[in-house]
Amino acid sequence: MGREIPVAGHLVRFDTHPDPIAVPPGTLIGDAARQAGIEIRQPCGGQGRCGRCAVQVESGRVRRRSILRLSKADLDAGYALACQTVIEGDVSVRVPPPELIERRLTTEQTAPEVEVPAGYNAAYVQTIQCATVQMSPPTMDDQTDDWERLLTALRVETGVDRLNTSLEQLRTLGATLREADWKVSVTFDTTCEPPCLIGIEPANDATLWGLAIDIGTTTVSVWLVDLSSGEVKAQATDYNRQIARGEDVISRIIYASKNDGGEELRTLVLESINTLTKAACAQAEVAPEAVVKATLSGNSTMMHLLLGLPPQSIRLEPFVTAINHPPLLCAREVGLEIHPYGRVDVLPGVASYVGADITAGVLSNGMRSSESVRLFIDVGTNGEIVLGSSDWLVTCACSAGPAFEGAGVLHGIRADRGAIEEVWIDGDTYEPTFQVIGRTKPRGFCGSGLISLLAEMFLTGVVDKSGHFDLSLETPRVRKGENGPEYVVCWADASETGEDLAITRTDIDNLLRAKAAIYAGFTILADRVGMDLKDAEQVLIGGAFGKYINVEKAIEIGLLPDMDWDRFQFLGNTSVRGAYLALLDREARAAVAQIASAMTYIELSADNTFYDAFTSALFLPHTDLSRFPSVTAAMAT
Amino acid sequence: MGREIPVAGHLVRFDTHPDPIAVPPGTLIGDAARQAGIEIRQPCGGQGRCGRCAVQVESGRVRRRSILRLSKADLDAGYALACQTVIEGDVSVRVPPPELIERRLTTEQTAPEVEVPAGYNAAYVQTIQCATVQMSPPTMDDQTDDWERLLTALRVETGVDRLNTSLEQLRTLGATLREADWKVSVTFDTTCEPPCLIGIEPANDATLWGLAIDIGTTTVSVWLVDLSSGEVKAQATDYNRQIARGEDVISRIIYASKNDGGEELRTLVLESINTLTKAACAQAEVAPEAVVKATLSGNSTMMHLLLGLPPQSIRLEPFVTAINHPPLLCAREVGLEIHPYGRVDVLPGVASYVGADITAGVLSNGMRSSESVRLFIDVGTNGEIVLGSSDWLVTCACSAGPAFEGAGVLHGIRADRGAIEEVWIDGDTYEPTFQVIGRTKPRGFCGSGLISLLAEMFLTGVVDKSGHFDLSLETPRVRKGENGPEYVVCWADASETGEDLAITRTDIDNLLRAKAAIYAGFTILADRVGMDLKDAEQVLIGGAFGKYINVEKAIEIGLLPDMDWDRFQFLGNTSVRGAYLALLDREARAAVAQIASAMTYIELSADNTFYDAFTSALFLPHTDLSRFPSVTAAMAT
Repeated sequence: MGREIPVAGHLVRFDTHPDPIAVPPGTLIGDAARQAGIEIRQPCGGQGRCGRCAVQVESGRVRRRSILRLSKADLDAGYALACQTVIEGDVSVRVPPPELIERRLTTEQTAPEVEVPAGYNAAYVQTIQCATVQMSPPTMDDQTDDWERLLTALRVETGVDRLNTSLEQLRTLGATLREADWKVSVTFDTTCEPPCLIGIEPANDATLWGLAIDIGTTTVSVWLVDLSSGEVKAQATDYNRQIARGEDVISRIIYASKNDGGEELRTLVLESINTLTKAACAQAEVAPEAVVKATLSGNSTMMHLLLGLPPQSIRLEPFVTAINHPPLLCAREVGLEIHPYGRVDVLPGVASYVGADITAGVLSNGMRSSESVRLFIDVGTNGEIVLGSSDWLVTCACSAGPAFEGAGVLHGIRADRGAIEEVWIDGDTYEPTFQVIGRTKPRGFCGSGLISLLAEMFLTGVVDKSGHFDLSLETPRVRKGENGPEYVVCWADASETGEDLAITRTDIDNLLRAKAAIYAGFTILADRVGMDLKDAEQVLIGGAFGKYINVEKAIEIGLLPDMDWDRFQFLGNTSVRGAYLALLDREARAAVAQIASAMTYIELSADNTFYDAFTSALFLPHTDLSRFPSVTAAMAT
Repeated sequence: MGREIPVAGHLVRFDTHPDPIAVPPGTLIGDAARQAGIEIRQPCGGQGRCGRCAVQVESGRVRRRSILRLSKADLDAGYALACQTVIEGDVSVRVPPPELIERRLTTEQTAPEVEVPAGYNAAYVQTIQCATVQMSPPTMDDQTDDWERLLTALRVETGVDRLNTSLEQLRTLGATLREADWKVSVTFDTTCEPPCLIGIEPANDATLWGLAIDIGTTTVSVWLVDLSSGEVKAQATDYNRQIARGEDVISRIIYASKNDGGEELRTLVLESINTLTKAACAQAEVAPEAVVKATLSGNSTMMHLLLGLPPQSIRLEPFVTAINHPPLLCAREVGLEIHPYGRVDVLPGVASYVGADITAGVLSNGMRSSESVRLFIDVGTNGEIVLGSSDWLVTCACSAGPAFEGAGVLHGIRADRGAIEEVWIDGDTYEPTFQVIGRTKPRGFCGSGLISLLAEMFLTGVVDKSGHFDLSLETPRVRKGENGPEYVVCWADASETGEDLAITRTDIDNLLRAKAAIYAGFTILADRVGMDLKDAEQVLIGGAFGKYINVEKAIEIGLLPDMDWDRFQFLGNTSVRGAYLALLDREARAAVAQIASAMTYIELSADNTFYDAFTSALFLPHTDLSRFPSVTAAMAT
């Protein structure tokens, strides 16, 4: 202020530096920071890929060349990638501590902000109703029985004149009515007919709580919801304790079929849910007994294991479930430690490998309210894909195998502390830079790390389009190891395990098969409805996997279709969000059932064009390069 | 046969005597027997009251002056009272061994013949349906889930496309369908909407069994029914094990309110039911698990205790139940040891003291199909009375107290072995003759014995119309005892207890109050609808008490209205018969609910004319003698 500055230049103020820096127009924020002597980490070498250089533009005009890894909320808060953002006026920039960025990128322990759906305050849409009714006490002239007296009062108050009830609930009815001096609050679930009684208590206006739960094969997420306001008051996430008995659905199904394996798996997932519920309730200072409803989503195997339904037929041709639309259940019956008569609504699935996680995902991802066609993918052990609009939906499940979850790969591990989650390879030296979850010594590669590594190896020529190593390269990192040709990412002395962390030819084959299965799924769905994948308005990516995936690299290996990055939208856990909507809103709950019924399921293993589509996709990025123009361009540079 | 016989005389052949006896026309069978030297016991002195002289007329013409104590089945089988039956032609007579007669009169261990209701073979009326369905196995082109596959096949077969099911039932679904090679028999209950699944089994045509159960305060009766044919295949009856914890409903309610009393009573009645069920099943060689439905009736207190519902409010003004129309329940939930998912249908009641036993009674007694007005009475600890026709029904409960069940009377006992059940007093000597159940030494008086004794004392002048003893009579049997004036029926040396068995003034007061309460009930009901009791076409008497009651004596003490004997009809256990009909037939089941809703209940303790009616009835037979012309006539003789 008052100091001379170069004509047509801009002033940049960094919160971590005392003085403003003058820079010419068009300077990148990263370059301005370097000029000021401020260290902003750029592990990907300023390629706009890693998201680690995110800064917050507090005021002033900038232009973002890329917004990769920034959410809408990030953008609204002014976040920008220092390596990709051009200064176009005087700006103030905050440089967040690296831990904060790291945390944002690698975990989701902070509660995502959940928007309460519009119109939720309209009581008629709520699935749980609570009516306070005042009865006249019985007299010698009016000896109506307790239950009928309650129903009569309820009819006057709400129009509801029948309630499903259990013997146990009737056993405490008389005492409650009398203790409450004939004024009680009646809570019931209106998603079934007749509505289902949950509880009768002395009149009160206590908050009613609900849970939206997603049971993933790897992770269980629980949201604690204030059913009156729709607000999410607490969230808790942890590994599914079943993991100890098998990492993917297939191994769990096999485990379930042995001795008491099914019962053991049921107990384990219940432990996970109940522990998380307790944690979420403690966080919001709510008694678990105040939770009157839980709406659950998850894949069909998880739902079967939770309910104690034998999952064997899911695994065996012709792959059928015991039930896709389970009835409304009671917490005590299921084993959830909430209100004993709390209702448990297990959302409907479509098929053995397209479960409630997908129908809930479609509910929450907005596909059903868009007339233009969108593509939805939820990648985990399996990749479930849905293509459609408000008019139609087709779906399929690609048995990608667990490669993207780190299994079936020599040094593959889950996306956990010590996992290499992103790799950059220098095109000249073939030396890698990598990012490790938790910033510790690496133990192995998680899914996103493998995608990243494969893309970098391909683009730098470490492997060719078939995934074959170029053993002629002048680097000790490409070598013939015990397991055949391999590329060493981390030498033994720098690894947590004391071993060289390498990717082998076999690993690459597994990854190619996994990505080919998924891409073939896209192809088949598009072919079935006679459209070009490119015509999809948006690609919606759900699931935990989708939170960290690097779109650019996923396109480079031919896992995702080649489209502009801004058409990819990362939605995080669409399954728990769908459960949340169905928990709150009868119409949303009815919509999930409708989605489940309306979805056309295509069984890929019964599709005779699948094998061709799969083998064509076994190359990097694909046999048909015209499908991947951006990759072709990148290969040319 | 070739032998000369007196002109205009008749030949009588007794099966116990070698030669026919010739008698003049108009001879009583009893006199003919005496002439032949055959002993036929006549403890009532040939007054046609005791029924002990019943013989079987195998051929020939007779005229029965009285048919007291003979059922329609007895008459069809040719039974006649030897003391009341006039010989009008050549006859053959079988004299049954006395034990047989005794057994017929004092117990009902033999199965009453139950007529299968007409039209029952129309499948649409059956409450339980079993459909055998053949499904196509799942294929890669048809991956419908197991449950939906079953429902689809069921819809084609029966039109039923939804079934209520439990998680437990779904858990075995997949294995059953596959073991059965996709051809199964599905059993479900159609009395609720949607119908309720009971079982899925490999296709079979096994018989489906049901139970009709009456839970009386004193006695539990179980009928085992073939649900296809409607036939009753076995019956079992025993005391309600709750008796050990209180003889009447009031003392059981009090017991239930102490500590775990309610749970103990629930366990006891379940033991009774389950033991009887086992016995009935053993008798018909049926596995209890083959029983898929139980329909229960009983008074409101019994129903509450069975279901574990607190009965306290039944006893306390304003006398209300927890629930009059319980929901359809599951055998496992209730504790019945039949098919675990067998449905338990507890029939609806009307009020605290007009329970399902009465609605079931009305269903089975035919009142609802008659345009003329009938009176129905079920006398036990309480006397429930229903007056009405196909157009209307009014009901009330008279708290008669337990006097007629032998309680509240010095030497009163239940109608069990050793109970004096009938008494005759010689009008000149005041010496009694009496009949003891089981033909043993007497221990005390049961209800029918007390009615009989009171009537005889009144008619012979031992007591006056107020029940006061005439201490001037020249007999040692009328005396002032420890407990005031009394009449000794059995001296100590002849009694089982070694005590004089006497009836005291206090006993008489209790009996008068009991009978006055019941008669006042008749009066109030008739007054309310503005009719004369005499205009009732029939008096239908139900309940165990009604099986042995001597109408003549009951009229003489003013317990029953004074009407021609042939208008009284003894129906036995109308409650279990009503349960049987509701078990078999959806329309009958709907009719019970309709009866329960349509019945106008009159609370006598809230009726301001009740006290007058009651005090007027405290006399023998009544203050208003014009109500009892036949008794007035008998008193004059």
